[in-house]
Amino acid sequence: MALIVQKYGGTSVGSVERIKAVADRVMRSRSAGNDIIAVVSAMAGETNRLFAIANQLCDSPDPRETDVLVATGEQVSSALLAIALRGMGQPAISFLAHQMRISTDSNHGRARIKSIDCEAVLQALKQRNIVVVAGYQGVDAKGDITTLGRGASDLTAVALAAALDADLCEIYTDVDGVYTADPNLCPNARKLERISYDEMLELAGLGAKVLQHRSVEVAKRFNVPLMVRSSFSEAPGTWVGQEDQSMEDVLVAGVTLDQNQSKLTLSGVEDRPGLAAKIFGPIAAAGIIVDMIIQNASADGRTDMTFTVARTDLKRALEMVEGIAAEIGARGVRHEDQVAKVSIVGCGMRTHAGVAARMFEVLARERINIEMISTSEIKVSVVVNSKYGELAVRALHEAFLGAGAPPSHSGAS
Amino acid sequence: MALIVQKYGGTSVGSVERIKAVADRVMRSRSAGNDIIAVVSAMAGETNRLFAIANQLCDSPDPRETDVLVATGEQVSSALLAIALRGMGQPAISFLAHQMRISTDSNHGRARIKSIDCEAVLQALKQRNIVVVAGYQGVDAKGDITTLGRGASDLTAVALAAALDADLCEIYTDVDGVYTADPNLCPNARKLERISYDEMLELAGLGAKVLQHRSVEVAKRFNVPLMVRSSFSEAPGTWVGQEDQSMEDVLVAGVTLDQNQSKLTLSGVEDRPGLAAKIFGPIAAAGIIVDMIIQNASADGRTDMTFTVARTDLKRALEMVEGIAAEIGARGVRHEDQVAKVSIVGCGMRTHAGVAARMFEVLARERINIEMISTSEIKVSVVVNSKYGELAVRALHEAFLGAGAPPSHSGAS
Repeated sequence: MALIVQKYGGTSVGSVERIKAVADRVMRSRSAGNDIIAVVSAMAGETNRLFAIANQLCDSPDPRETDVLVATGEQVSSALLAIALRGMGQPAISFLAHQMRISTDSNHGRARIKSIDCEAVLQALKQRNIVVVAGYQGVDAKGDITTLGRGASDLTAVALAAALDADLCEIYTDVDGVYTADPNLCPNARKLERISYDEMLELAGLGAKVLQHRSVEVAKRFNVPLMVRSSFSEAPGTWVGQEDQSMEDVLVAGVTLDQNQSKLTLSGVEDRPGLAAKIFGPIAAAGIIVDMIIQNASADGRTDMTFTVARTDLKRALEMVEGIAAEIGARGVRHEDQVAKVSIVGCGMRTHAGVAARMFEVLARERINIEMISTSEIKVSVVVNSKYGELAVRALHEAFLGAGAPPSHSGAS
Repeated sequence: MALIVQKYGGTSVGSVERIKAVADRVMRSRSAGNDIIAVVSAMAGETNRLFAIANQLCDSPDPRETDVLVATGEQVSSALLAIALRGMGQPAISFLAHQMRISTDSNHGRARIKSIDCEAVLQALKQRNIVVVAGYQGVDAKGDITTLGRGASDLTAVALAAALDADLCEIYTDVDGVYTADPNLCPNARKLERISYDEMLELAGLGAKVLQHRSVEVAKRFNVPLMVRSSFSEAPGTWVGQEDQSMEDVLVAGVTLDQNQSKLTLSGVEDRPGLAAKIFGPIAAAGIIVDMIIQNASADGRTDMTFTVARTDLKRALEMVEGIAAEIGARGVRHEDQVAKVSIVGCGMRTHAGVAARMFEVLARERINIEMISTSEIKVSVVVNSKYGELAVRALHEAFLGAGAPPSHSGAS
């Protein structure tokens, strides 16, 4: 008998019919002889609805109270799933964060889990219950409700699986796994049979919205076996786990596109120590995440500093940077919001050279100009003009993952 | 500086605009130099919506989980009001039942408050906060969420006012006070300036939906001064308090109509001890509330037993009674669902004789047949054919509360 943590996302519990379907699925896993903990998100659209009401009341709603508000979404789903299961004659009990003490810090809206007290859950499992847990939420030392950030029901599930040393953590969503590219962009994108934590981390960070980034970090740290699969079908999903030998044979696991990008350039910056800190310190303090940074040294002792931020942060970033430019005597500030980030990800890059060069070659062949480049051990990202984003993804997918390309972890390969 | 508990009902917080209006009103009381605790109901329609979803999942949803579900309604309202107040620059903090320990028993859906720990609330008030409390809910010894019954946000407010020895408990609703009759039935119904706890208890129990019955019981027991008023106007409301001399001068404070009535008659019941218990024991055990009971002794040692239940309970009651009738050898069972209960209520009846007789006289003059009669110290109720219900109310209101009638507590008198 295995202990399985299952997480059901917003579309999976988006209606009465869907909740019934989830209850059926939970019961099937149960009937197969497993202990089940089901972590649920808010019904699709509910969290946005609640945020919208708060924003109608006030431009910047109080964070503590906003958490009290939006945590109700998951509370509703957890109660409804427990009601559905009990209606089927199956003992079931819901837990909110304060009832099982998912303890977090007090950073409302993006709290971090400090500990989980599994006692009540284990007791409930022992009494043959299916345990239903409201995702996304925690409780701080003062007893205040916190939330863990958008998409963090994944994190609740993975953290619970880690704390309970579960045999498996299944993430049920509205897609049937992790794909080599967005199938809407690449009709020949294929579902991956398995992928490493590191690859998934790069993909999650690159806008592939299948798994929340921090949940993958926690899964990696505690070696929680993850399975991403669809609650709408019986198709097997994608395994996310430790990197193994076979994965290293694969150059590229996936190609991603992030269109929520913009680029800022501070030109004519004096080239002396400490200036980077002067520029990026205030931006970080304002909670704006800077992704790529490129500095071009120049002959006259001045340099250009180019960096990217999410397009949604551009306006705020621009205001700050213009102030900073005046302060440090830079010559000017330019910005560009029509840029996209295209990335290839794969463990194989650790051991195979030349992947980046081949990527640049493919893009050059399509006459796509590369504006910025950034690389990690298992990823190469380039910034290109927005309008070439989709073309770039298709060309790279064809080159690295199309018919005739080297093997991927895909089931079809 | 006074400590005021204000309770805002579902229509008072029914939209973003209404919540803003409530925040304004709270701020005005605050600016007048008072400490304010605002107890809120769920937004109008929300509790029914949540119950409806639960009932779509399951015919009889699990009570524990249903409480987890429906308690979110008040949680949402409390967070939104706190957000609105903070948006106006006013320190405010919401409390859920488990955060301030409104401890109850474990009777889900109709839990009774055992104690309230006011420590956190007092601390928050000391820090100049307006305290917002989610009504309707409690927490039991296991830490499970409980609810206190429909309309019980009133009870939360009154219990808090009692526990904190507040100077005043204001119940804000969508009507501007307690009327001598339903103004929809009696165009000349008048708002009462004041009314005694006992009169309010009879009125609350008789279907005047202004205040929840148990909240009035608690207010009476702890002598909490209540004011029922409208959140939609500045009109003064109705005081509910201890009976005083002037109230005793008033024969009738109000006339009420309850159309949700039905009547059952067990005919030819053997007239021997213990049979009433045999009949009403199982009905009570099924949670069906029997209101009036009349037994007519007859010459042949057999008797007719007639009683009323809510029309919504008639079907269940009838099935039970037919079984019981067979068991105890009664001759038959008749039922009538087209009956209404008309009542007059007033402290003056304690000291003035002849009120009932005058009521019967008024009804006789209108040729309305009285099917059943029941009296208490300060109330006379009669059951009449449904179709005469409204006529009865109007005739009694005119006789006891119309122009030329003896004085009432009404402001107009």
